[in-house]
Amino acid sequence: MADALRALAIDAVEAAKSGHPGMPMGMADVATVLWTRALKFDAADPRWPDRDRFVLSAGHGSMLLYALLHLTGHAGMEMEELRNFRQLGSRTAGHPEFGEHPGIETTTGPLGQGLANAVGMAIAERMLAARFGRSLVDHRTWVIASDGDLMEGISHEAASLAGHLRLAKLTVLFDDNGISIDGSTGLSCSDDVLKRFASYGWATKRIDGHDHAEIAGALGYAIRSGRPTLIACRTVIGFGAPTKAGSAAAHGAPLGPEEAQAAKRALGWDYPPFTVPAEIAAAWAEAGRRGARDRLAWLRRMQRSPLRAEFERVLQGRLPDEWRAGLDAWKQAVASERPKLATRQASQKALEALAPAIPELVGGSADLTGSNLTHVKAMGTVSPGNWGGRHIHWGVREHAMAAAMNGIALHGGLIPYGGTFLVFSDYMRPAIRLAALMRQRVVYVLTHDSIGLGEDGPTHQPVEHLASLRAIPNLYVFRPADAVETAEAWALALARSDGPSVLALTRQPVPTLRTTHTPENLTARGGYVLLEASGQRQATLIATGSEVAIAVAAREILEAAGIATAVVSMPCFELFLRQDEATQAMILGGGLRVGIEAAVSLGWDRVLGLSGLFIGMSGFGASGPYEKLYRHFGITAEAVAGAVLRRLGRDPSE
Amino acid sequence: MADALRALAIDAVEAAKSGHPGMPMGMADVATVLWTRALKFDAADPRWPDRDRFVLSAGHGSMLLYALLHLTGHAGMEMEELRNFRQLGSRTAGHPEFGEHPGIETTTGPLGQGLANAVGMAIAERMLAARFGRSLVDHRTWVIASDGDLMEGISHEAASLAGHLRLAKLTVLFDDNGISIDGSTGLSCSDDVLKRFASYGWATKRIDGHDHAEIAGALGYAIRSGRPTLIACRTVIGFGAPTKAGSAAAHGAPLGPEEAQAAKRALGWDYPPFTVPAEIAAAWAEAGRRGARDRLAWLRRMQRSPLRAEFERVLQGRLPDEWRAGLDAWKQAVASERPKLATRQASQKALEALAPAIPELVGGSADLTGSNLTHVKAMGTVSPGNWGGRHIHWGVREHAMAAAMNGIALHGGLIPYGGTFLVFSDYMRPAIRLAALMRQRVVYVLTHDSIGLGEDGPTHQPVEHLASLRAIPNLYVFRPADAVETAEAWALALARSDGPSVLALTRQPVPTLRTTHTPENLTARGGYVLLEASGQRQATLIATGSEVAIAVAAREILEAAGIATAVVSMPCFELFLRQDEATQAMILGGGLRVGIEAAVSLGWDRVLGLSGLFIGMSGFGASGPYEKLYRHFGITAEAVAGAVLRRLGRDPSE
Repeated sequence: MADALRALAIDAVEAAKSGHPGMPMGMADVATVLWTRALKFDAADPRWPDRDRFVLSAGHGSMLLYALLHLTGHAGMEMEELRNFRQLGSRTAGHPEFGEHPGIETTTGPLGQGLANAVGMAIAERMLAARFGRSLVDHRTWVIASDGDLMEGISHEAASLAGHLRLAKLTVLFDDNGISIDGSTGLSCSDDVLKRFASYGWATKRIDGHDHAEIAGALGYAIRSGRPTLIACRTVIGFGAPTKAGSAAAHGAPLGPEEAQAAKRALGWDYPPFTVPAEIAAAWAEAGRRGARDRLAWLRRMQRSPLRAEFERVLQGRLPDEWRAGLDAWKQAVASERPKLATRQASQKALEALAPAIPELVGGSADLTGSNLTHVKAMGTVSPGNWGGRHIHWGVREHAMAAAMNGIALHGGLIPYGGTFLVFSDYMRPAIRLAALMRQRVVYVLTHDSIGLGEDGPTHQPVEHLASLRAIPNLYVFRPADAVETAEAWALALARSDGPSVLALTRQPVPTLRTTHTPENLTARGGYVLLEASGQRQATLIATGSEVAIAVAAREILEAAGIATAVVSMPCFELFLRQDEATQAMILGGGLRVGIEAAVSLGWDRVLGLSGLFIGMSGFGASGPYEKLYRHFGITAEAVAGAVLRRLGRDPSE
Repeated sequence: MADALRALAIDAVEAAKSGHPGMPMGMADVATVLWTRALKFDAADPRWPDRDRFVLSAGHGSMLLYALLHLTGHAGMEMEELRNFRQLGSRTAGHPEFGEHPGIETTTGPLGQGLANAVGMAIAERMLAARFGRSLVDHRTWVIASDGDLMEGISHEAASLAGHLRLAKLTVLFDDNGISIDGSTGLSCSDDVLKRFASYGWATKRIDGHDHAEIAGALGYAIRSGRPTLIACRTVIGFGAPTKAGSAAAHGAPLGPEEAQAAKRALGWDYPPFTVPAEIAAAWAEAGRRGARDRLAWLRRMQRSPLRAEFERVLQGRLPDEWRAGLDAWKQAVASERPKLATRQASQKALEALAPAIPELVGGSADLTGSNLTHVKAMGTVSPGNWGGRHIHWGVREHAMAAAMNGIALHGGLIPYGGTFLVFSDYMRPAIRLAALMRQRVVYVLTHDSIGLGEDGPTHQPVEHLASLRAIPNLYVFRPADAVETAEAWALALARSDGPSVLALTRQPVPTLRTTHTPENLTARGGYVLLEASGQRQATLIATGSEVAIAVAAREILEAAGIATAVVSMPCFELFLRQDEATQAMILGGGLRVGIEAAVSLGWDRVLGLSGLFIGMSGFGASGPYEKLYRHFGITAEAVAGAVLRRLGRDPSE
């Protein structure tokens, strides 16, 4: 049966003239034992909520997954898809892409991400089991990981966290083939991987990855170990290929027609390409039905469960009916109470309204809980063995946090958010990108969003991060100006179910600017006129976040000088640019356009044009009290007004 | 003596009303023993090339470093600087900033970076020792690291690499205080750190970080161990503070006047703020002179050395006189031979000319050597115990590679470059940022720079990375169009000594477009007219990299249709935008401006204005052969020409 996987991988890579045959050939035995004996799944419903999750972290071995889905009889993964491996429009992309087929649990390829996704999935399983009980939620998470996955730093963060949280239902099958792209892993790595994982509190075992009895024994060991478990499977990359097996030549390129032919001969596989003999096909199809009885039993439990409606709701990602009520009340209260709050504080207030209303909302912070203000009382705290809480101490592990949040979102049933400083979004970027690519609802609470954080200095002051996050497709970057916009941004981030959102929030206090309550969520427009000019507009000040207050103050000066000036708040460029062009033009006005943001200007030309003015940063920040920094870098109401007056041919000293 | 460090840290944080007193108070004993007994330095010349490197990876404890520099008598770190801790214009920024004082070896604060910098410094030491001999190069690298440093993924990559390379002169002093910002480290971490580092091949030891004899013994152990060494120093955070010691309250905020007073009393420190009694001051000053004799002996060896001139040259970062000759010859040959090469291949050709000419050039790749084409024969390969090579197998460790390259550059004497795929620049981003902030000459060879990589699909296809890298201040992003521009970009990246550069290179072949040799480096202009229009310009096609050839083909179509069209190649936006505005406007022309780049448009409005056209990507890529992807996403000569004709009111089907 394993040879069927090998043969299909060989054939597909040859047909595509591109791909990675070595890993599927090496791990075919392990995958066969896992899928035919241990993995809980039913090919008839690949989205069965209580299935085991299978994550191919070594995504370059995608043909292994596609062959498994095909052979076990998954609809939509017929032989034609395998023939079209790596072709435009097929479901069989070079690396597994979430959404292309329901049996693909996550998008993998960037190394280490799948492993950390799996940690998130295992966390989600525990949290949902705590809420809905073992009769509805009781499944395992299995990962196939490569040397490369384990060399990546994110593997440390993810494995350390899994050990700490004692994720006993997580098993990593390490394809220990000793080969990476450059050659022997010994060229760059001398780790004792088992000892390393033992240091994290994992159970570990080393086996021959081609010995089915040993593999089966190890899977049993993993199930019984009571800890997350790493099985190092010694395998031969490109197993069966007469000259390329065991070498980097089998890793990332087709074997070539002759070697492919010889490999099949060596495996005793005497069939034409893309052909599986009936007996083997039947055995695989049988494996694909192994879980049917379990699934039906689960469905019966589910139908009887008093928690059914709620379980279905969270699995479908539908928010509770009244989820906005508390938030709206807070928004209305703000407009009248007009507090001066940092937007990170406003975010905590919003969460205080949201957390009780949305039980599937789970939060956390990368060891900056008190700075990000991500924790609220209603949530409780997750700790090893206590899964009733809803706030996770991720530790100083931004990257694993973001990738595990992807896993939580992908698992279904929970909506994750997590906090760190905006500048450290750089540490999470590969995972943020994948959230956007996979269209997952994940919210990043990124505080300390400019030089406004003050004394910590340039290492901690983001200047390029707003621009660089805005560059990621399908990511919404919100930078709310006050407590009202913060509440609105939270509502939008949670309401969208097709992608992630950033909330960029201040450390320093800002005044309430939206002092008239609007039932409409104005942030949903992306940008809107906060204050109209007193007459025909001569200037429009367009700002985000903490700089909107500066724009408002600059407008006062300009209006006093006889310049009719409007203020546009622009909390979300992505949403603004979705409005039709006429609306955009009307909001931005025909006069001088001035952008104000304590960040680099990249991307602002889209609204300013070549004739606009930009007041912001042109380089890195500095260490000092924040008011002094704003003055030092010339981002003040006086500086804005002066620049506008000069541009309009007026002497600012008048 | 240690109490002097504690008292100064308390005083400075109190005066600034901001900062982290806990770490300096906890690690004062370890730092005192290190600086008074083991660290090789001479305060009279903090840039002595053969000094030991001291890296405060836990940069939030910056007052520890500032106090050490002050007490040991470093010029430029007088008491006034300590009084101005965290104030604008002082040298005592919230986190240590390279360049503010010569005794600050690297900028730290983003956790894990310092540790990986130190690995790079230790690598540089070994490589330079191999070249110049132990009489000139023989020093150690010492790191103080926190729980947070060791939780970060980059610590895994860096430590694993250091173990593999057996960097015996690297010692990490782990401030094992059990406290992070959120509280006990036990909230999020259960690692057995010693076992973990042992799994990497490190020597390890646990000591009482307040027992001077134990500390001294451990430093000796590290020196003798023959392996990189981790000393876990059990310390009490905020040692001496009566109520806050040992708790997170001492971590990131001033103690407050009362607690500060009580702490000093408890320490028996009965002096006014910023006051050190003469006897203690004298002992510290004596420590600052400890290395004077060693330094003078070294200077004598240096003066006698036949390698002196070369050693001084590389330490000063001056390139050899004739370094351009081979590259220029290659550039000239290309213009006449007109090869069709991927720019990654052209980069390898450039390196074949550069590597023999610049012996201080050291390369490497994050396990993509054969894809990035970073290796050339003249370089040899670094392996454990063999430091004569100049190409490093970094393994699948992009982040550590980038941070260690910072360390290599900071150490001095070497110019590092390293390769991975452009999409994985996301994994390196925190370190790229620091290279830009610290103005270090580091070159990133980032191949597979668009959908042009084809079948590997969206996970591997950068679309937002050019924009997001262009957002980083002081980073040059080169995307050369052909082999000539690739050679020019290499010349510019190496010639600049005030910051890092990216070379974004194609996987797929591109034609030679610069078919007339120009002695001038046109890439230095950032953007220039590659092909002028046949008459008064109606359109200007502005493109980068592989899309310049598309622009050239589109121009043919347009000129044939009677539209006078120029092509501008824009290999480096940063350099282009440094030209004066009139020159920019002349190059970009007055007609319709069309940007062409197989990436998102963010940033292009700067040259296109609001009335320009952009042909590129608006979302993520897809898996398939690259020619099909270009057609699928509408980035072809025909599509460009059609869009221009439509915009100019012409029917493209005519």
